[in-house]
Amino acid sequence: MALKPKSLLRRPKNTKTVNQIPGTMTYVGRKETARTRLEVIDYNQDSYERFSSTSTEDAFKFVDEDKITWFNIDGLSNIEEIQKLGEYYELHHLIMEDIVNTGQRPKIEEHQDYLFIVAKMLYYRNGNIENEHISMIVGKNYLLTFQESDGDVFDPVRERLETAKGRIRGRSADYLMFALLDAIIDNYFLVIDDMSDRIETLEASLFIDKPKDNVTQEIQELKSTILRIRRSVFPLREVVGRLEKMENELIKSSTVSYIRDLHDHIVQISENIEIYREMIWGLMDLYMTTISNKMNEVMKVLTIMASIFIPLTFIAGIYGMNFEYMPELEWKYGYFVLWGIMIIIFFLMLYYFKRKKWL
Amino acid sequence: MALKPKSLLRRPKNTKTVNQIPGTMTYVGRKETARTRLEVIDYNQDSYERFSSTSTEDAFKFVDEDKITWFNIDGLSNIEEIQKLGEYYELHHLIMEDIVNTGQRPKIEEHQDYLFIVAKMLYYRNGNIENEHISMIVGKNYLLTFQESDGDVFDPVRERLETAKGRIRGRSADYLMFALLDAIIDNYFLVIDDMSDRIETLEASLFIDKPKDNVTQEIQELKSTILRIRRSVFPLREVVGRLEKMENELIKSSTVSYIRDLHDHIVQISENIEIYREMIWGLMDLYMTTISNKMNEVMKVLTIMASIFIPLTFIAGIYGMNFEYMPELEWKYGYFVLWGIMIIIFFLMLYYFKRKKWL
Amino acid sequence: MALKPKSLLRRPKNTKTVNQIPGTMTYVGRKETARTRLEVIDYNQDSYERFSSTSTEDAFKFVDEDKITWFNIDGLSNIEEIQKLGEYYELHHLIMEDIVNTGQRPKIEEHQDYLFIVAKMLYYRNGNIENEHISMIVGKNYLLTFQESDGDVFDPVRERLETAKGRIRGRSADYLMFALLDAIIDNYFLVIDDMSDRIETLEASLFIDKPKDNVTQEIQELKSTILRIRRSVFPLREVVGRLEKMENELIKSSTVSYIRDLHDHIVQISENIEIYREMIWGLMDLYMTTISNKMNEVMKVLTIMASIFIPLTFIAGIYGMNFEYMPELEWKYGYFVLWGIMIIIFFLMLYYFKRKKWL
Amino acid sequence: MALKPKSLLRRPKNTKTVNQIPGTMTYVGRKETARTRLEVIDYNQDSYERFSSTSTEDAFKFVDEDKITWFNIDGLSNIEEIQKLGEYYELHHLIMEDIVNTGQRPKIEEHQDYLFIVAKMLYYRNGNIENEHISMIVGKNYLLTFQESDGDVFDPVRERLETAKGRIRGRSADYLMFALLDAIIDNYFLVIDDMSDRIETLEASLFIDKPKDNVTQEIQELKSTILRIRRSVFPLREVVGRLEKMENELIKSSTVSYIRDLHDHIVQISENIEIYREMIWGLMDLYMTTISNKMNEVMKVLTIMASIFIPLTFIAGIYGMNFEYMPELEWKYGYFVLWGIMIIIFFLMLYYFKRKKWL
Amino acid sequence: MALKPKSLLRRPKNTKTVNQIPGTMTYVGRKETARTRLEVIDYNQDSYERFSSTSTEDAFKFVDEDKITWFNIDGLSNIEEIQKLGEYYELHHLIMEDIVNTGQRPKIEEHQDYLFIVAKMLYYRNGNIENEHISMIVGKNYLLTFQESDGDVFDPVRERLETAKGRIRGRSADYLMFALLDAIIDNYFLVIDDMSDRIETLEASLFIDKPKDNVTQEIQELKSTILRIRRSVFPLREVVGRLEKMENELIKSSTVSYIRDLHDHIVQISENIEIYREMIWGLMDLYMTTISNKMNEVMKVLTIMASIFIPLTFIAGIYGMNFEYMPELEWKYGYFVLWGIMIIIFFLMLYYFKRKKWL
Repeated sequence: MALKPKSLLRRPKNTKTVNQIPGTMTYVGRKETARTRLEVIDYNQDSYERFSSTSTEDAFKFVDEDKITWFNIDGLSNIEEIQKLGEYYELHHLIMEDIVNTGQRPKIEEHQDYLFIVAKMLYYRNGNIENEHISMIVGKNYLLTFQESDGDVFDPVRERLETAKGRIRGRSADYLMFALLDAIIDNYFLVIDDMSDRIETLEASLFIDKPKDNVTQEIQELKSTILRIRRSVFPLREVVGRLEKMENELIKSSTVSYIRDLHDHIVQISENIEIYREMIWGLMDLYMTTISNKMNEVMKVLTIMASIFIPLTFIAGIYGMNFEYMPELEWKYGYFVLWGIMIIIFFLMLYYFKRKKWL
Repeated sequence: MALKPKSLLRRPKNTKTVNQIPGTMTYVGRKETARTRLEVIDYNQDSYERFSSTSTEDAFKFVDEDKITWFNIDGLSNIEEIQKLGEYYELHHLIMEDIVNTGQRPKIEEHQDYLFIVAKMLYYRNGNIENEHISMIVGKNYLLTFQESDGDVFDPVRERLETAKGRIRGRSADYLMFALLDAIIDNYFLVIDDMSDRIETLEASLFIDKPKDNVTQEIQELKSTILRIRRSVFPLREVVGRLEKMENELIKSSTVSYIRDLHDHIVQISENIEIYREMIWGLMDLYMTTISNKMNEVMKVLTIMASIFIPLTFIAGIYGMNFEYMPELEWKYGYFVLWGIMIIIFFLMLYYFKRKKWL
Repeated sequence: MALKPKSLLRRPKNTKTVNQIPGTMTYVGRKETARTRLEVIDYNQDSYERFSSTSTEDAFKFVDEDKITWFNIDGLSNIEEIQKLGEYYELHHLIMEDIVNTGQRPKIEEHQDYLFIVAKMLYYRNGNIENEHISMIVGKNYLLTFQESDGDVFDPVRERLETAKGRIRGRSADYLMFALLDAIIDNYFLVIDDMSDRIETLEASLFIDKPKDNVTQEIQELKSTILRIRRSVFPLREVVGRLEKMENELIKSSTVSYIRDLHDHIVQISENIEIYREMIWGLMDLYMTTISNKMNEVMKVLTIMASIFIPLTFIAGIYGMNFEYMPELEWKYGYFVLWGIMIIIFFLMLYYFKRKKWL
Repeated sequence: MALKPKSLLRRPKNTKTVNQIPGTMTYVGRKETARTRLEVIDYNQDSYERFSSTSTEDAFKFVDEDKITWFNIDGLSNIEEIQKLGEYYELHHLIMEDIVNTGQRPKIEEHQDYLFIVAKMLYYRNGNIENEHISMIVGKNYLLTFQESDGDVFDPVRERLETAKGRIRGRSADYLMFALLDAIIDNYFLVIDDMSDRIETLEASLFIDKPKDNVTQEIQELKSTILRIRRSVFPLREVVGRLEKMENELIKSSTVSYIRDLHDHIVQISENIEIYREMIWGLMDLYMTTISNKMNEVMKVLTIMASIFIPLTFIAGIYGMNFEYMPELEWKYGYFVLWGIMIIIFFLMLYYFKRKKWL
Repeated sequence: MALKPKSLLRRPKNTKTVNQIPGTMTYVGRKETARTRLEVIDYNQDSYERFSSTSTEDAFKFVDEDKITWFNIDGLSNIEEIQKLGEYYELHHLIMEDIVNTGQRPKIEEHQDYLFIVAKMLYYRNGNIENEHISMIVGKNYLLTFQESDGDVFDPVRERLETAKGRIRGRSADYLMFALLDAIIDNYFLVIDDMSDRIETLEASLFIDKPKDNVTQEIQELKSTILRIRRSVFPLREVVGRLEKMENELIKSSTVSYIRDLHDHIVQISENIEIYREMIWGLMDLYMTTISNKMNEVMKVLTIMASIFIPLTFIAGIYGMNFEYMPELEWKYGYFVLWGIMIIIFFLMLYYFKRKKWL
């Protein structure tokens, strides 16, 4: 359990990139071992071809400049292959650095011949929210995507390309970029839906008799998770907002209404995040009230028990004294009279606590 | 009770729309079974005709292009009929998607020949605030409205159309749009008035002796309700604000002052929401203070009882000892003297607590 | 007492105006029974005439177009008379609606021939802050003012007009408008001064021994009062700010420096409101600390009493046992030795608590 | 002690100025009795003359239009003298009102021939932060300053003028204005340094064993002091910011870089104020934790004492019973065996609490 | 320990600079004793020369105007040497003041022939975050840097210059400035990484059984540290932002993309700071909950012990009374029956507390 709170702060250590020459490519993620896999898809309205490889040279042969090319790279630790790709497409070396720097926040940059977009994919793996760095380069008739590991978020898009479903094959590279961003953002919905389920469950558990022991830990974890999601979503909202307003010939006017739709979605997600955030922060207050209420109950039990029996014990103590002359002791029914008095005191006490609504 | 907190987070699950082709119409609401009902009202200054049907084809025949047509659709689960309507009026397929996507937040879009507005109706059903998705398309001489189920919020407008009350029959489609938005926003007043009543009741209940057990739950529920209302109202305020400033020939200059009035109303509602929000958040603090005060009272009773009787019991214990030589025991009035001492101690104690203002 | 918290939320119920035709005049205030009273003041540099009536027709006769006319209406429930006035001065029917809608927030509207200003007067009545709706129409040479009931806030202005004190008689209608707004805002100073006195008193009461029982209630009431004041003041600040920057021939350039002065005043009031708000919110924390400190003190008394006497009672209990062979009991000075031991324990305990600084 | 909290809210009562004709000069400060003292300093690169008087007429004779004149007025309660000065320099009557209205917040106004600046001096007097109203009029070759009482903040500037140290004598009136503002703002540093010392001391006192009784009061006082400082500093930051950007021939371009430096200083002060504010608000939380920790300790002592001795007392009570047949009582070593058992229980209890880490 | 909280407020006392002539150089740091050391590096694409001295005159001889000169000064207390440098490069005397005023916040100023940048270096020394004042002057072909003491943050840049690694030797002075700012900002990553480690450790410690005694102190210290870091980072973010957008011929267009990269980094740092801040503030709540939970546990033990044994002691007390006629005492098995009853009561109590889930 003690490992959980780390989740918030889990991020690529920046130490690696400190004191390096700017533009140096350093993969700072935690997926060092993943093999780099290249996939090229050439398509237009009428045709679709797909090619997989681990060598960039092989892949370049396959690129068909007359069609739209989607070049997807899975795995960022093999810096040499990525560098060759960067040289092939003449990318700025600072962009090359950002592609493998998984600590880079979502952003968009307009360059002469292409747009550079950084985003984050969020998905569940073993009950934890995983954060995956993804970069896109959109050119006139190509789209390059760089992912940390082979995720399945883009599969529906691949399928639509292959089966020519929807409008995707007849459109240009910017529409493909939209389709991929749409897939990423659609996935956020799943993540925040799950978030909301966890909040509901935790909140409900606070209203039942015995909340679990690790409530604070779970609240703390929810806090850090929502902060992490926010850190991925909010800059991406800016990115999409800028895409919508951008006047760049790479973005066809027919794509703009789709991007506006995307913007709608990510604004909706942001609003939900803010609401969940507010609810999570409220949970701590709620829990404090719960604890205080329980303490109150404990104290009442103690006070009632003590207030009833302490005076009675005192009375019993009195008649346990060994004075030579204690007239009551010699009365015949003294003992029974005393029992009577004690029972009366007992019920008076009960009545008193009843009236105070402690019972 | 444990079901209540869900209310905040109750919203159409987004899962359904994930990984779909953009522009795909998917009804995500919870009113799947509702039949789709179409109603066409043709009117101008002098005439008024109303036609109800479940078939779009029948309805189209009724549309009179020389008059203003209000085409109202109740029920969004019958996607085919809505699609036919969309084709008839040449609506963009992303708009078609938004019409049935009840998760869509309020927004306004300017298109070539029409305006597209999404809003939320809020009303009470069985003590809960229900949230209904509503879309409007305003064209040159037609207004399309799409609702989840047949509500009665628009009935006063229908009546004014039928009886030619007010200015509505002599005006164009944008005025009808204003009248409907006005009906929606007027309804918000009812919802926040009810909110304020519930806050008052809860606040008052915190000042009486025994607050109900589920105070925290009610506060939590109020929190989530106000957050939900806010999520419907705030984006709509933006929508109305943009409508006011929009320079579009679909909005006649004579309608603008009405829209400004509408804007005033929704700003007023927003301000109230913020005030209620602040009051609700304050209730939790108030409740904490109440609990702490009660705990204080409980502790005082315990402390007074214990502080008085524990020393007395000790004294009684002393003279219950069996030492062979305890001179006091043999004194004739020892017992009565002791009673005297104990009564004095008792009153000194009372005086002490009185001075400390604990009694 | 339980009625107090209502004060925050006391506002005209909006229910009355729901589902009405826009532009319908409905008085929603709580002063239905007040008679409507009209007062016309015609003045210029050299002359001053005043006329009171309850009939608009009578009043219209009195209006002298060559002079500046101040037409003041007290009481908004008599809608017909107000309507006649509206027709006489050709006011838009939406303005007529706002004049009697006491729920309308402060605002300013520029129309063709006149400015329309809504403000709120705040003053004390029976220890409560009352909120009065006031509307102004400023035309070329007339000023209309509409109040809920006959207040005395404007009396100093009337007196200056009558006695020709200051510059007021030689100026145009916009200066009169400024003078009235100035009177309203001057009054806010009184209200917030009183607010500050109440905060001081409450704060001081938290530092003395026994805070009053209804501290939370008073804090809650202060909270709601400051929120209500804020709701009247903040939109008016915007109104004055817009007046200052407005380029409208109705506002003479010589009046602008006075309006700037007005703006200074209302900004100063707003700043004070924010400071008082922060102080009031802080009072709750202060009170919580006070409660906790008191609880601490109570617990210390209990702990000291119990810790001292419980062990002593145990010792007494030991020698109250009836074992056949208990050597100490037979010692001659056993009893006195025991007293000695118990007194030593007593003082050791006292010393222990002294060192812990609990005494 | 109960007088302290007033400090926050100590400000000139606004009551005096309510319902007055705008432009009426009313001194609202608390230094009514102070004599008004006038001082004229004429200087240029080569000469320096200084003249003190209590009569404006005398002072006017001394003004040399060929030199730069600094006209300083100490004491604002003598309104007539100030009015004469205002007439001499043809100041707007609203400015005259602001000069003596000590409630006026810092501001800057551009007029035809002069700039009008209102600021606040803060300094320590008897351990309290005093707030002094100061106004400046900067003309082409004169600077008028109006202070509530004769402070010593400007003395270093006077000395530099007299001894011709630095650049001051060779510059124009705007540089003198800068020098005086600089003196005022430099003084703020002393005030916030003292603030920081008090926060440090208080914070340190919360970590030692027995915090002083009046901790809450001191925190509350710090809160109100920082709010008061803020109210003086923040509007002045705006004033200096506007001075920096102002395009007015009264401000020489050579002075602008000095004003930028001034702006730097006041921004730095503002940042410190915000940090101190955050720290002070945090102190309350810290104190609450301290209280709770102490309560915990108290409760532990009670629980340990009670848990150990209550069962032992019960056992002693058992063998104090007077049943005719209680076999243990007759055992020879019964008493000693029981002592053994009780000692074992005692140590088991100690061990239990040790393991729970309560000891 | 009591010394720690000072860390927040540790800053150069401003007292020294109060009432000084503007432009007076006063070193206000705490490193008075450090010797001033000068280092000149002349370089271009092909050559690299380095010269160290303590005399400016010696250093000036070394400056080669045909190459790019980096003039680095370590130690600011030797004001005369710095002044000579200022005269050599014709720096404004206000800049000279800022160079040695270690209280100056990060800023950027555009002057005729050079840019002036103030920044703060943050690094660890003996477990504390040290804050070092650094100023830069960028001219056409020179860069002056002024540090408080000889730090090693710039060493990697020196090495790249010496070994001609990367692009640095072929670029102009603005690229060198970028490289140094990059080194400073890279170092921030180390500082905030350490911050995050400390938060993790503290948070984890709150979930284990016995949090350390000085938790509040550590939280308080983290608070003040994060506030201090923020004060260094946030204004620097503005500085870098302005550098990015600045249109100044001193900043080559080829350098702009590097500065954009720098901006990305500092924005990322700022976001992390805000997240850590939120987490730290949350830790206090977390700790409060922990304390309350512990108190609850303590109270439960007390309540259970007292509730079980107080009634039993009472029963024992009853049969310790000395009434002459108490029939139970004479029953043969009275004693054993009583034991039975007491054991039953004991288990009933246990069962009761078990059901209440207190055990």
